[in-house]
Amino acid sequence: MKAVGVIVEYNPLHNGHLYHIQKAKELTNADIVIAVMSGPFLQRGEPAVVSKWHRADMALQHGIDLVIELPYAFATQHAEIFAYGAVRLLDSLRCDYICFGSESGDIQSFYNAYSLLEENKTNYEQWLKAFMTEGNSYPKAASLAFLQLTEKKTAMLDLSKPNNMLGFQYVKAVCSLKLAIQLVTIARKDANYHDTYFSSETIASATSIRKQLFDAKSGIETITSYIPTHTNAILQAFQMEYGVYMQWENYWPYLKFRLLQIKANELSGIYEVEEGLEHRLLASIQKADSFHHFLTLVKTKRYTWTRLQRICTHVLTNTKKTDIKEMSEPTYIRLLGSTASGRLYLKEKKKNFLLPVVSKLSSFQNQQIALDSKAAAIYSLGAPLSFQQKLTKLEYSQPPIMK
Amino acid sequence: MKAVGVIVEYNPLHNGHLYHIQKAKELTNADIVIAVMSGPFLQRGEPAVVSKWHRADMALQHGIDLVIELPYAFATQHAEIFAYGAVRLLDSLRCDYICFGSESGDIQSFYNAYSLLEENKTNYEQWLKAFMTEGNSYPKAASLAFLQLTEKKTAMLDLSKPNNMLGFQYVKAVCSLKLAIQLVTIARKDANYHDTYFSSETIASATSIRKQLFDAKSGIETITSYIPTHTNAILQAFQMEYGVYMQWENYWPYLKFRLLQIKANELSGIYEVEEGLEHRLLASIQKADSFHHFLTLVKTKRYTWTRLQRICTHVLTNTKKTDIKEMSEPTYIRLLGSTASGRLYLKEKKKNFLLPVVSKLSSFQNQQIALDSKAAAIYSLGAPLSFQQKLTKLEYSQPPIMK
Repeated sequence: MKAVGVIVEYNPLHNGHLYHIQKAKELTNADIVIAVMSGPFLQRGEPAVVSKWHRADMALQHGIDLVIELPYAFATQHAEIFAYGAVRLLDSLRCDYICFGSESGDIQSFYNAYSLLEENKTNYEQWLKAFMTEGNSYPKAASLAFLQLTEKKTAMLDLSKPNNMLGFQYVKAVCSLKLAIQLVTIARKDANYHDTYFSSETIASATSIRKQLFDAKSGIETITSYIPTHTNAILQAFQMEYGVYMQWENYWPYLKFRLLQIKANELSGIYEVEEGLEHRLLASIQKADSFHHFLTLVKTKRYTWTRLQRICTHVLTNTKKTDIKEMSEPTYIRLLGSTASGRLYLKEKKKNFLLPVVSKLSSFQNQQIALDSKAAAIYSLGAPLSFQQKLTKLEYSQPPIMK
Repeated sequence: MKAVGVIVEYNPLHNGHLYHIQKAKELTNADIVIAVMSGPFLQRGEPAVVSKWHRADMALQHGIDLVIELPYAFATQHAEIFAYGAVRLLDSLRCDYICFGSESGDIQSFYNAYSLLEENKTNYEQWLKAFMTEGNSYPKAASLAFLQLTEKKTAMLDLSKPNNMLGFQYVKAVCSLKLAIQLVTIARKDANYHDTYFSSETIASATSIRKQLFDAKSGIETITSYIPTHTNAILQAFQMEYGVYMQWENYWPYLKFRLLQIKANELSGIYEVEEGLEHRLLASIQKADSFHHFLTLVKTKRYTWTRLQRICTHVLTNTKKTDIKEMSEPTYIRLLGSTASGRLYLKEKKKNFLLPVVSKLSSFQNQQIALDSKAAAIYSLGAPLSFQQKLTKLEYSQPPIMK
């Protein structure tokens, strides 16, 4: 059996993702699709609108055969570490292909970009440093530095596009680790990553879908044409069962509490809190009356909104620099769900997997998976008090979903 | 001018306190009464029902001339440290007398108890250790050990009574520091400290008053005969302005969050977390669905309910063993309010005070007062989200109340 891997968040799964899954199978002719999916907290440093179990369910309903959790230590990270962890997991699952969406849609341009960067490493790093010194954020400086190398060349990859940048990191991980995985990319249809409005009749960005979902007035009806029926049903079931959709504002009281009780020197030990940012965070907390207001007060050119959200997530989960330091490689394959084909693949290939498959939480314990469970427990606090225990319990009692 | 000091919490101020204030003046013939009063968190490890400013207001309305905040580092402590801090502050304010309520009402019995203990220190400590080893809590073991010394003597102080024990600590502090302060005690009228029902027509324990206050059905009407009119008005004003009375359950979401995010080794650094209690706290947090339920799960013979509540308060305020270690002496006199007579006393005696008087928070900064401000900020989180900022601001913007 051949497998194609996709790296996803499904927050929530929409028609664009459906297209991606179909194309992945079509282009590679693989027997199954494996999704490595972020858990409760996402790459942008946000809580997922619904739990990982509900999102795994969405995935299994729409063509994914195995859903594997990307551990917190990789999921809530900048593009390079996020991509590294996901690629490592897909390789440990012995995937033959990885298929990712990009603005470019041309895989050769990614390989070219990788070669160019490898050949001009020193040069690139000097430019990167120079742009950082000018006060740019890391992603901005990285794309500007890359632009310096490509200036005289045509048809080069545009690394200022978020999905090209993420795709580039997959390519970089595969190439630098010299993995046998074959990479495939498809051009994303219509919607742009950051779109907050609906730009097509059936495809919209997850960002714009979430925006509508949180809007009490428009609600779920406005998004039905952009998400499959099952996604719709699962979203509604989650809200019925846990009283709410998850978003940052639900966690604002906890973030505020923690920042009121922590001292600057302790805060500077939290992962990604650098360059005296702890003082800026503490100075802003007393003035802010919402999470959005708080981030607006903290925001500078130097830090992307996304990075600041990730930092706030690490404050919530109390994740320290010393914790992440010890977690540079994935150590387990946490199975969230499978189809019959997925189980067939497991049966056939499991003996060749590079990491143990964890179906039952109690059967495997280490620091990395303990962090995932902690993240799930903290995530559940975003629900109203009376629903929290039920939601936390999912982490410990929910067996992998079988479809 | 002569001053008599009282050590209080006024949670809330009731008719029994009124009697105490009147008697204190009557017995000592002092010109003014100075109250050293706990701030937002109390000796029993509980949040005060209303803010320290509202309780200072109650005090000034009922015969207290100066209200001084007992710093968090002494207020949320077992009887010995609580008493030590309060006595030190009253001495630094150059008080002539301290008047305390007790079950005994006979000051000589306190001096006798102190002498007896001093003469039999080694013996006492051996008994104390033996009773602790049997699994008793510290206060229980202390009163049992004392009983061993007094067995053959008659008319000895009963240290198993909470107010006798607290009074004994005042006497101990004054005697061991060899202070010039004269001690006076009055027998408490009617209500017992821990009473949860009303035992007299006009005097009830603060515990029973709070119980009624939190009971939505009975509410404030049932307690009007036990509290002065002004206390009633101030209680109602607080609830009107901040939407709630403060109690532990209001802080349960924050305590739960913190215990879900903290690791055992970090938790063991929190003040008063000893003997592996961190594991017991962490094991119970997932199972509990309220603060009361949580404490029931953690409770053993070894730890009093009060001590466990204090530990939870330190978890909320993130107060570490290393923090308290550096705060063995009061370092300032934080003025919360004064009457005209109180201000006259300040004018006449301030130059002889042993510590600086802090009327404006911005004029004095050290670790000890920063902990008080932090406690006030955390305390404000017990109010609904939309009231919190207004409540926190009191700490920084409220000048001492002038009556």
